[in-house]
Parts: sequence; structure tokens; C-alpha cells
Amino acid sequence: MTINTSVFESGIDIIVVGSGFAGLAAAIEAAEAGVSVIVLEKMMAPGGNSVISDGGIAAPGTTYQIDAGISDSPELMYQDMLTAGEGLNYPELVKVVTEGANEAFLWSRDYLGVKYKERVDIFGGHTVARCYTPESISGSELIKRQLARLKELKVPIFLGTYVRALIQDEMGRVTGVQIIDGYRYNQSNIGIERTIPAAKAVIVASGGFGSDVEFRRAQDPRLDNTLKSTNKPFATAEIIKECLRIGANPVQLSRIQLGPWTSPDENGFGAGPLFGDYVVLPYGILVDPETGNRFVNELNDRKSLAEALLKQKHPVIGIADAAGVKIADWNLTRALEKGVVKTYNSLDDLARYYGVDYGALKATLARFNDMVKKGKDNDFQKPILNEATTLEEPPFYAMRIWPKVHHTMGGLQIDVSARVIHRDQQPIMGLYAAGEVTGGIHGACRLGSCAITECLVIGRIAGRKAAADRI
Amino acid sequence: MTINTSVFESGIDIIVVGSGFAGLAAAIEAAEAGVSVIVLEKMMAPGGNSVISDGGIAAPGTTYQIDAGISDSPELMYQDMLTAGEGLNYPELVKVVTEGANEAFLWSRDYLGVKYKERVDIFGGHTVARCYTPESISGSELIKRQLARLKELKVPIFLGTYVRALIQDEMGRVTGVQIIDGYRYNQSNIGIERTIPAAKAVIVASGGFGSDVEFRRAQDPRLDNTLKSTNKPFATAEIIKECLRIGANPVQLSRIQLGPWTSPDENGFGAGPLFGDYVVLPYGILVDPETGNRFVNELNDRKSLAEALLKQKHPVIGIADAAGVKIADWNLTRALEKGVVKTYNSLDDLARYYGVDYGALKATLARFNDMVKKGKDNDFQKPILNEATTLEEPPFYAMRIWPKVHHTMGGLQIDVSARVIHRDQQPIMGLYAAGEVTGGIHGACRLGSCAITECLVIGRIAGRKAAADRI
Repeated sequence: MTINTSVFESGIDIIVVGSGFAGLAAAIEAAEAGVSVIVLEKMMAPGGNSVISDGGIAAPGTTYQIDAGISDSPELMYQDMLTAGEGLNYPELVKVVTEGANEAFLWSRDYLGVKYKERVDIFGGHTVARCYTPESISGSELIKRQLARLKELKVPIFLGTYVRALIQDEMGRVTGVQIIDGYRYNQSNIGIERTIPAAKAVIVASGGFGSDVEFRRAQDPRLDNTLKSTNKPFATAEIIKECLRIGANPVQLSRIQLGPWTSPDENGFGAGPLFGDYVVLPYGILVDPETGNRFVNELNDRKSLAEALLKQKHPVIGIADAAGVKIADWNLTRALEKGVVKTYNSLDDLARYYGVDYGALKATLARFNDMVKKGKDNDFQKPILNEATTLEEPPFYAMRIWPKVHHTMGGLQIDVSARVIHRDQQPIMGLYAAGEVTGGIHGACRLGSCAITECLVIGRIAGRKAAADRI
Repeated sequence: MTINTSVFESGIDIIVVGSGFAGLAAAIEAAEAGVSVIVLEKMMAPGGNSVISDGGIAAPGTTYQIDAGISDSPELMYQDMLTAGEGLNYPELVKVVTEGANEAFLWSRDYLGVKYKERVDIFGGHTVARCYTPESISGSELIKRQLARLKELKVPIFLGTYVRALIQDEMGRVTGVQIIDGYRYNQSNIGIERTIPAAKAVIVASGGFGSDVEFRRAQDPRLDNTLKSTNKPFATAEIIKECLRIGANPVQLSRIQLGPWTSPDENGFGAGPLFGDYVVLPYGILVDPETGNRFVNELNDRKSLAEALLKQKHPVIGIADAAGVKIADWNLTRALEKGVVKTYNSLDDLARYYGVDYGALKATLARFNDMVKKGKDNDFQKPILNEATTLEEPPFYAMRIWPKVHHTMGGLQIDVSARVIHRDQQPIMGLYAAGEVTGGIHGACRLGSCAITECLVIGRIAGRKAAADRI
């Protein structure tokens, strides 16, 4: 799609780079403030990586919580995020996110019209249930509502527009972008170069770099191409690098989160995590195929579990039985149809399929079952859940498990006004950022459901501040 | 000191920025290779932060170890570094460092003439004793020897020369530096600008950024000015930032090491660590003054130990007794004279001085002594060294312990030829780096005594490779 240049004739105030949760939130706020906005998206569909999210958003102190008798506060969510983040989080940014969380949730529900399930869930690392999931269990719900609102606001979204460079004036202020208009992902020499000036600001909301093997491996050499990503393949670092080129300070780039419940036998997030995360980890076991032994507390936190998996140097086998699957009560049809999760009528069959020594595996299950009966794991201190049962009822369910790169906590340094900060600790004039492209909010470890909160809170701030810039 | 420009007349091949272990090692090797070299040092004394090191160097498989019956190898040291580094280390760089370690140690001893004590020590995180300390217990010994050799090699070291910028040609190759000649630390508007071309390369060996509060706090917001640093105040980030400006890739910047054996009652590295690191951790105990209890395996790696200290939220007490001090056999005169370490004729006196409950402290020592006798620490799994004794012989020695920023593991990305790597993963032509300014060798945590090994191994490679560049 070639940009209809008539839109430039009256001038553009704000250019938003990226059309995920954060970018669209920024664009909406800026347009609401009455300035002219365009959104640039390199892909041929809007929504970026946000559309594959499950759409869960964390908000403390909601009426849902009050009705459910859950005592929560921005302060408690703040503490949870700092605990998970190992104290590396920028406290002032976490404060902004947690204090703005409830309003952002209500904005998505009441202003945009996202329909949420009538339930409050707790995810690992949160001390209370504060997570809301759309009825569709998909981030695409929020993206659709954001796009609909932008249409009403007459904000154009130009697809197939790849930002090659930020343009600066002689004072270093960002005054526009240079793009390839008509860009097609993974095709070279397509499209035409074009320069678009922005009278007020450029807002970078281009996402993380989970699929950028080269860039992520430089920060963590283990994360080479033997590891897949739960992200879409276009989640790459070119905009981060372009911001670094003009002096943006990169913070905590080596803090990269792995999902420890993914299958190496499918691409992207896939169908496996529903079995891995919700069945194997609580009710089953992880087994090293070379020894037939367990090697970890399967209910350890994401970071510890991923580290333990990587130390194995090869995919492991996640095993559950019919009883565990029944207790967990999730619909595994898709994972079974894809062949990511397989069933076996006997442990012997399972062992043969994965090339695990049957005697060793049998002994491991016996040891595990003994532990379940005693209610105590003396080997790895896994908490035995009340509803846990012994692992012996066929069919046995199994999936290969190997981590995938899931979220990049590090990125561009920003301040509480979403201004991008130069390595000399001064704001880069005319440049704002929001969402996964930024760093410092989640520190060493992002908690599930906090990313959407962050994208909406900081994205909206970026839109408002940019609209008020250079008046 | 204004540079004698006559040195430029015949042209300079290599400019080394920084005069610590790594920079001087690079300069020596380059000069030995027959090219012309100069060293630029911003301060008015050479040696940088290296002169306050204790000079301990790790080397595996030495004759000292063989004589002492210690089985060690580069592979074992490699594994130790990767374990401490949480696998974030660049494996190929760790391989180069560990395989070159013994030669680097012998180079410092036999080629430069550093006199080492006839002992092999073990530091936290090493699985065997492989650390050698100069007779002077000071890194200044090595610096002096390096300076003496450079004098023989007629390599000039220009003090008070502050590198403001790297100069590049139209292809991006680094071809020289722009400096302030006659720079004086903490004084502005002094000195004159000067450009120095380098025919072959610039080698950056400007050290870490432990004293750069602004830069380090951006990576880890906890490390504000409430924490002191063991580094000299001039250990700042200006050269790292200048390298980032021309596109160098910053890796693992948020991995910043705290020294867990420092005294909050003195500035800089101080006299305390000799007692804290060499006496308390192996032979004594750390006690929380509020409870009188131990709280950690005192021989844990630096990172775990520092995190455990920060969680205490206040300085703790390191305690040893006369027997431990005797076994450790270090001269504590300076620490005692400074009053950083104090002696007490009885445990009661010690408890009273620090406001610790005497009964609780007495019970802690009894429990510890029982553990020493049994050779096993069931509380915190501290390894009980063969020569360890019970903690009961007056006088008791004690010191307040609180972390200080000690080492910045992150920095410029380099390859095995010490070439600085651009964020697009291509080498920046004409630019090399070595020492603490680089990142990726130590990953999440540097082990004690591995830094000097790294500085010598990588510094020498940088010197040799730069000398062979652009022939």
C-alpha cells in the first residue's frame, strides 16, 4: 500500500511507529487531544505481536476484586512487580504503571468496549488474583477495538511502511522518519523511500526483539537459533537499534524471559503451553530423556525453570496421565490434533517413543508416586498440590518441552513522561516510546498479565505528552 | 603534561586508551610486535583502577597446584566461570581466557618479574584453589612491572590526556582520537584539543563504570549514590558511551557486581576486604545484628552473597577469631589501625559493641562450631575447609560489612580477536577493546581473581591483533 500523500498536505503532528497495544493506545490519546496522528506498521496487518497475546490484563483494586473479597492495591502490585523483577525495576515507572492500571483496564472496557470474562485470575508471581481476560481469550479483541476507535478518530494506519531512520534537526530533536513505503516482509528491493516530517514527535512502539536471533544472542549467547520464540518472526530489533544510533540509552537488554512450557515441535506460542503450563507442571513431571530422571521442581518460577531446562542441553519430556489431565480440565484437542501432545497406552510405549530407558522411567514414576502419597518432594521440593494424584492412569500424555524466547524486558530508557532518554541522561527531544520496546519496568522478570497494563498506561501517556509537546 | 608532539612525526600505529592491566598488556604486546604505540591516560598517574586491586590472578594447572596436589584444568575454570556467570558468558571468550590463563600468569611472573606468594588460594565460586597473589598483595606490583617494561620498549604514556572522541574515516574505520591534552580530573576548561591519528588501531582499555552513578543507576536503579564503590572515583563511562556513539554494541550492562566483603566505614576498596574476603568468609561467619543469626553460606558466590546482604537492608557483622586469623595468615595491621576491623577480648564485648543479643550470638557460634566439627553445614551448605577450626579463640575480630559496587561485567561486545563489535554484529574496523570496558566474559557474575587473568589474556590479544591489523 502506497501512502496517500494527501494526508501530509496539512502536516502531521505525531508519527506512531508500531500498531500493537502501546502504539494504538498512544495514537488514540494523541488524536483525542486534537492533533494529527498517523500510525506506521511494517507488516501488512495491524496489531503486531499483540494479536497473539491471550489479552490478560492486570489491574489492582477493581470492583471485581472488591466483589470477590480480594484485597488489593497499586502498592501491592508494585511490590509484586519489584519482587519478580529482583529490584532492578525503575521504581517510578512501576509506580506510574500500577497506579494507572485500574484506569487503563476501565478504559479498555468502558471507553473501547472490550468484553471481559466475569472472573479474576491469579498468575504466577502475583500475590492476589488481579488478572482479567477478554471473553475471546485473545489480545486481538483489544486491538480490534483500538482500531475501530482510531477509524472513528480518522487516524490513518499505513501498512507495509518500514521505518529505516529517524530524522533529527541540527539540535538533535527528532523531526520525522524516513521509511520504505510499500515494504514487504522478507522481500528486498521493494517499495520506495519516503520522508515523513512530524511537527511534534515520533512515538516508538515497535515491540520487543524476541525473534531477533542476532540481537538477542549478543545479550545472552544461549539464545541462538536452537531456541524458537513464542513471538511472531517479525519481532526484531531494527527500531531499537535505530534509536541507539541517535543516542538512546539501552537498559537491561540482557534480561530476556523464556517460556518454560513450550514445545520445540511447533512454531510460535503454539498449542503446547496449555498442556505444559497447566497440566504437566502442576500435576505431572519433567524427565530428562537421557537418564529417565526428574531434574527440577516443576512448579518453580519461570526464570528458574527455564534455567534448569537450558542446563539439560536438550528438550525434556513432560509427562502427565489421564487423572492429571482430568483434574486440570483444559481442552487439549488442538494440541493433540497438532501432534504436539501425544498419548500412550502404556509407560513402556511412551519410553520407547522417546528413547527413554523404561526401567529408569518406571523407577522415576514410582519415586514420584511415593512422594505424592507422602505429600512431600524430598528430591526437588516441588509443592504437592492438594488435588494432585499419583501418575499411573493410562493413557499417559507427553510432550517434548524446550524453552522459547518470550519477552524482552530490556529496551529503551524512558522517563515517566515516556520520553526516550539519551545515554547522557537527557531526554531526546521529540522522541517517545512505550511498550516492549522500552526497558526497566519489569526488571529481571515480567509477571504474566502486566505487559498489557504497561502498554496501555505508558502508551496513553506517550500519546498525551507528545500531543502537548512543542506547542 | 602536554604531549611532546615530536613523537607523532614518524606516525603512530596504535593508540591505547587507559593504563590499567589490560591497556598496558596490550601496549607491551604491540610494541613487542614492532609497531609504534602510545598510551593515553586521563589521570595524572598511570595504572587506573588496577592499582587498588589486590593483584590476585587465577590460573589453572600451574606447577604450584601440581605440587600442592590440586587437580585443575582450563576446562574446570571454564565451567566455574560459566556457573557463576549463569551461562550468560560468551563461551568462546571464556575459552580463550581460561586456556590462556596459565600462560598469562607465567608472563606476569617470568617475563615481567612479578613476585608471587608461595601459596594457592581459593576464592568463592572456584571449585579449587587457583588464585595467586603478589607478595605485595597489590595490583600496583604488576602495574609497576608493566610500566618498567614499556619504558624499556620506549612506549610513551601520556598522562592527563582525556579522550573526547573517536575519529572515523568515511568507511567507519577508527583512525584516531580527539583528546584534551593537559586535562585535569574534575577541572573544566583546562587543556587543549588535539587530534592524534592511529595508522593501525585504537585499543580501548578504559575500565569499568563502577563509580559512574548516573550510568550504573540507569542499568540498576538500586545502585544510586547511597552505595559506595570499591573503585576509584574516576571509573566512569565516558569511553564506553563514546564507543556506543559510533555503534559499538553494549552487552549485559545491567550485570553489575557488588563486593560483599566491604566496610561501609571507609571509602573505596579500603583495608576491610582483606579481612572480610580472606578471613571472615572462609573461616568466620556473617551475622545479622538484629537477630544474632547467620543468614547465608559465607562461601557463596559474590552475586548470591551481595543479594543476601542487600536483603538484610542494613550492614551485617563479619566475625572471626584468633585461630581463623592465624590460619588465613594475612597482615591485618592496616585494617586494625584504620579501625575498620576491631578486636574484642570476649564474645560478650563484641556483642555489646554491635548491639547484638549475646545469648543469640553465643548460640550461633555454638551451632557453627558443632558444624565445623562435623564437617558439614546443614543450615546454609557452606563448604567446611580442611583447615577450618571452631570459632572460640579470643581475641574475636569483627567488621561491619555492606556491599559496594565493585565490577561492571557488561560493556562493549568483542570477539575472540578483541575487535569491538557493532550492534549490527560486524566488527568496527580499527577498534579493539580489553578489560573491564568489555562485556560478556563474566556474564552475570565475575569470580574473584578472574579479572586480572582476563585483562592480561585479552589485553595481549588486542595488542597482537592490532599490531597485525592493516598491514
